[in-house]
Amino acid sequence: MPKIETCFSPSLLHLYDIKDSIVVIIDVFRATSTIAAVLEQGAKEIIPVSKVEECIALGEKLPNSITAGERDGKVAPGLQHGNSPLEYPRSFIEGKTLILTTTNGTRLLHMCHDANEIITGSFLNLGAVCAYLKASGKDVLLACASWKNRYNLEDSLFAGAVYHDLKNQFDMNCDSTRAAHHLYLAAKDNLYGFIQDSSHFLRLSKFGLEYDMEYCCKINQHNVLVKLEGDRLCIS
Amino acid sequence: MPKIETCFSPSLLHLYDIKDSIVVIIDVFRATSTIAAVLEQGAKEIIPVSKVEECIALGEKLPNSITAGERDGKVAPGLQHGNSPLEYPRSFIEGKTLILTTTNGTRLLHMCHDANEIITGSFLNLGAVCAYLKASGKDVLLACASWKNRYNLEDSLFAGAVYHDLKNQFDMNCDSTRAAHHLYLAAKDNLYGFIQDSSHFLRLSKFGLEYDMEYCCKINQHNVLVKLEGDRLCIS
Repeated sequence: MPKIETCFSPSLLHLYDIKDSIVVIIDVFRATSTIAAVLEQGAKEIIPVSKVEECIALGEKLPNSITAGERDGKVAPGLQHGNSPLEYPRSFIEGKTLILTTTNGTRLLHMCHDANEIITGSFLNLGAVCAYLKASGKDVLLACASWKNRYNLEDSLFAGAVYHDLKNQFDMNCDSTRAAHHLYLAAKDNLYGFIQDSSHFLRLSKFGLEYDMEYCCKINQHNVLVKLEGDRLCIS
Repeated sequence: MPKIETCFSPSLLHLYDIKDSIVVIIDVFRATSTIAAVLEQGAKEIIPVSKVEECIALGEKLPNSITAGERDGKVAPGLQHGNSPLEYPRSFIEGKTLILTTTNGTRLLHMCHDANEIITGSFLNLGAVCAYLKASGKDVLLACASWKNRYNLEDSLFAGAVYHDLKNQFDMNCDSTRAAHHLYLAAKDNLYGFIQDSSHFLRLSKFGLEYDMEYCCKINQHNVLVKLEGDRLCIS
């Protein structure tokens, strides 16, 4: 059986050998939630970039593109749009390229460049992620974007949700995965209620973003499988 | 109110400012459990060292000393004793200096040298640790030794147990502490049963060390407050 592990922070990524694994990038609040929503609403592709300047420069070059992203929970100066899954209705985003930079998620994605495959995961596309992993037969690393390298609750809760669905088809001997699963079992009947006592919720709710986080806790709202192909994220 | 935080791995220690904090070094299986037991059984002091060679060299110099330690769960070649809290009855250890090196705990202890204070914690001395922290009025970092920098269940369970006792007297906005507390609440009625599904339990039970780990799950069996004074650990 393939094995499944969980990495709680980009600062721990060096402990895992990912060259034969599918890495699931997890940034529930909000990069990977936004990515699922934007692609399901018909965007052509998403180009994740690490730096704001890179985002602006690429936006000037690429026709039919939108620059978007945040730093510390707010739209970064110089970018056109933010990092909310609710900001991108089909009428606005269909057929366009989104160039996206975020505090944690896009950075982790670039750190995993030597993985066998990279997909992105959020509660909004939980079902598609689990189905893909079960069908693949490959080892899996659930990689939490965390907050500036610090462990966060929402990403590990999602890791626990994935393991909950995969547990009969994967070998697991990883305490991070065990802990994530225990957390998920405690939270699963009221994900949004559980997550309200978390650092990221407290941080983003100061900007009035509770509705955004409530949306990010909905399961299978944008149930697409998102894969990195070259330097672009698209529906697979 | 002072604040309390939890660090899940030595690889994350750089994210925390510890210069004004008490750091609690946590290595439940088994360094900090052995440290509590050895000192409560009357050892004069413990000198934690990072390397096996250093341990041997110091043992040759210091009169009335014993060298002890493990690598990967077994007594390290060249050392006299292991890393079990049950290995050091009073009749053997009283008045002696133990020079100790372990895979994870002693290394983390040296990494925290710039903390305001360093104490060690285990279930065997949980009560003394909590009483000291509550009386101190200082910020606290609960520092898990983990296993070769990977998150482990037993150390975070202990962090959760400490927070459970301190929660009304400390400010907390740290998801690691929240997760540790949730875990502790799920485990507290049967700590030893809970921990049997953990990587470290599975690893050490291959060496027949279940009895040792069962002992490490007992609360307040050696209820001493252990503090680093200079380069030595002693009862405070």
